[in-house]
Amino acid sequence: MDSLRNRKSIRKYSNKEVSEELLNSLLTDAFRASNTGNMQTYSVIVTRSEQQKEKLLPFHFNQPSIKTAPVVLTFCVDFRRFSRWCVESGAEPGYNNYLSFYSATIDSMLAAQTFAVAAEDAGLGLCFFGTTNYNAEGIIDALELPELVFPVTTVTVGWPAENPSQSDRLDPLGLIHQETYKDVDVKALYAYKESLPEMQKFVEENGKPSLAHVFTDVRYTKANNEFFSDALLKAIKRQGFIF
Amino acid sequence: MDSLRNRKSIRKYSNKEVSEELLNSLLTDAFRASNTGNMQTYSVIVTRSEQQKEKLLPFHFNQPSIKTAPVVLTFCVDFRRFSRWCVESGAEPGYNNYLSFYSATIDSMLAAQTFAVAAEDAGLGLCFFGTTNYNAEGIIDALELPELVFPVTTVTVGWPAENPSQSDRLDPLGLIHQETYKDVDVKALYAYKESLPEMQKFVEENGKPSLAHVFTDVRYTKANNEFFSDALLKAIKRQGFIF
Repeated sequence: MDSLRNRKSIRKYSNKEVSEELLNSLLTDAFRASNTGNMQTYSVIVTRSEQQKEKLLPFHFNQPSIKTAPVVLTFCVDFRRFSRWCVESGAEPGYNNYLSFYSATIDSMLAAQTFAVAAEDAGLGLCFFGTTNYNAEGIIDALELPELVFPVTTVTVGWPAENPSQSDRLDPLGLIHQETYKDVDVKALYAYKESLPEMQKFVEENGKPSLAHVFTDVRYTKANNEFFSDALLKAIKRQGFIF
Repeated sequence: MDSLRNRKSIRKYSNKEVSEELLNSLLTDAFRASNTGNMQTYSVIVTRSEQQKEKLLPFHFNQPSIKTAPVVLTFCVDFRRFSRWCVESGAEPGYNNYLSFYSATIDSMLAAQTFAVAAEDAGLGLCFFGTTNYNAEGIIDALELPELVFPVTTVTVGWPAENPSQSDRLDPLGLIHQETYKDVDVKALYAYKESLPEMQKFVEENGKPSLAHVFTDVRYTKANNEFFSDALLKAIKRQGFIF
């Protein structure tokens, strides 16, 4: 599919509104994605108001598109709705555990990425935010997420007002393993990426000996990863998933 | 997109081969999906051999399509390749933590679902297997996954040899929340599902008082969820993600 192969993340949006009708139609497509036992254990929170965007902003490290996008979507694990249905049916739900959390994460992502494909096919631009996993607790408060509801990923959505060049990707054959896992020659696999002028500029600007050092020492450091791991685990437990 | 809205999972496949060329082309599309910091921390294991399918089969609870599908794909978190590149570049990777594991799970799912959309658009049929999260340890052994590699989801792929009716979905408005999370009337939301003849048959066959009881007492029980939660957490730790 050309639309999949040519896609790029869009962070700048025009003022044109994204109608509730279009958004609901795209989410309806998203909810047709595969899911565990057809339990549909996810919810989507739609943020349009300035006030709510202001609340979310710091938890996305003040990335401006949270404010400038007409719509911000937060895809959430939701075992609350299903559990409430069980209770109201006189049954006893047992979904406050790690397996339920992890499988609902997978189902949330199946819906989120189906939404993304449908939205891009409709001409919309979007960007995923990994910050949701860094600051889950703040997002939980901002969106008033109750027990058994957990924010998995955030997507900003709008009509594109930029046309960036496509980012690089590794040779796909380096990611595909026949029958069993085999180590690849990583220096050869990463040679193209390391050769790109924008990557060399990135290394120079950060004053690092290699591109890998920019990742380990600046962008995704061990200390930060460990700090935010603790916060993430704490937030999962706070939402009632016991492990 | 009609292809998204009309999709259904396919578990029966014709004998027609899925060529390596087509598969690699679809996976190339999949790897264009959004991902954290463009680190592409995932791998895909392709299972075609009878011997490997036999090994995987018990860990997918002997579901026959694992054997009858021409291709079985296991999408995996892979922080090993990236970490090896860091080490070979003289940098010190710090990705053996829960945040890295969870964000790579999300990135694996973005790729997996993009693959699914591309494959279905090409006329292939597929089915996701949640069993991967139940029996991760067995799958790790069968696919020889080393440290920092973890199986997230499995997809069987082939040319459709069945045309099942589409499964039901909840009213999408019950899953979409404006600005903040709000509880919905669950009995009203589930009334349509509960009214379906196949669901009523399901309740009767299981001798349960309600459809919810079939989920809590038969399909996804608290005891099983807790048992498999422990196994899942153990497997994540075994692969070197510390938490």
